[in-house]
Amino acid sequence: MRARVYVTLKPSVFDPQGRTIAEALHSLGYANVDDVRQGKYFELDLQTTEVDAAKALAAEVADKVLANPVIESYRVEVE
Amino acid sequence: MRARVYVTLKPSVFDPQGRTIAEALHSLGYANVDDVRQGKYFELDLQTTEVDAAKALAAEVADKVLANPVIESYRVEVE
Repeated sequence: MRARVYVTLKPSVFDPQGRTIAEALHSLGYANVDDVRQGKYFELDLQTTEVDAAKALAAEVADKVLANPVIESYRVEVE
Repeated sequence: MRARVYVTLKPSVFDPQGRTIAEALHSLGYANVDDVRQGKYFELDLQTTEVDAAKALAAEVADKVLANPVIESYRVEVE
C-alpha cells in the first residue's frame, strides 16, 4: 500500500525558501504569482494492506520522523 | 487561486534521501515501511481567477523553475 505524506510549515511560520522562490519568479516576469510556500512530500511503500492500519502507521511516522510538529503540519493520504 | 505543485524524482532515478529515511525508519523499528521517496511540494498563490489559466501558469512555473524535467516529474492541482 502506498501512503503520501505532505508536510508544510504552519501558516504562522515564516517561509524564507518560499519567499525567495516568489521573488525569483517576480524577477523572471511571473507577476501573477503572489506568494509561494514550500513543503515536503513523501511517498511511503507500506507492507500493510489495511487502509486504517496504513493511515495510522503513516501518521505515526509523519509525526515522529518526517515532520516537526512544533512548526510543521502534515496531511496523510493512502491509496 | 491556489495551485499545488508536487515534484518527484522520476521512478528510474535513485533517491538517496528517501533511501536514508527508509533506513532510519527501519532502525527505529518501522519494519513495515518498505521504501520511501522524497519529493517537493509547493503552494502557489496566484492572482488568476480562471482555473485553466491558473493551471497553465502553475505548469509553466513548475516546468521552468520548480522542477528539473530531466530527472523530475511534476503534478499540478488547482483549487
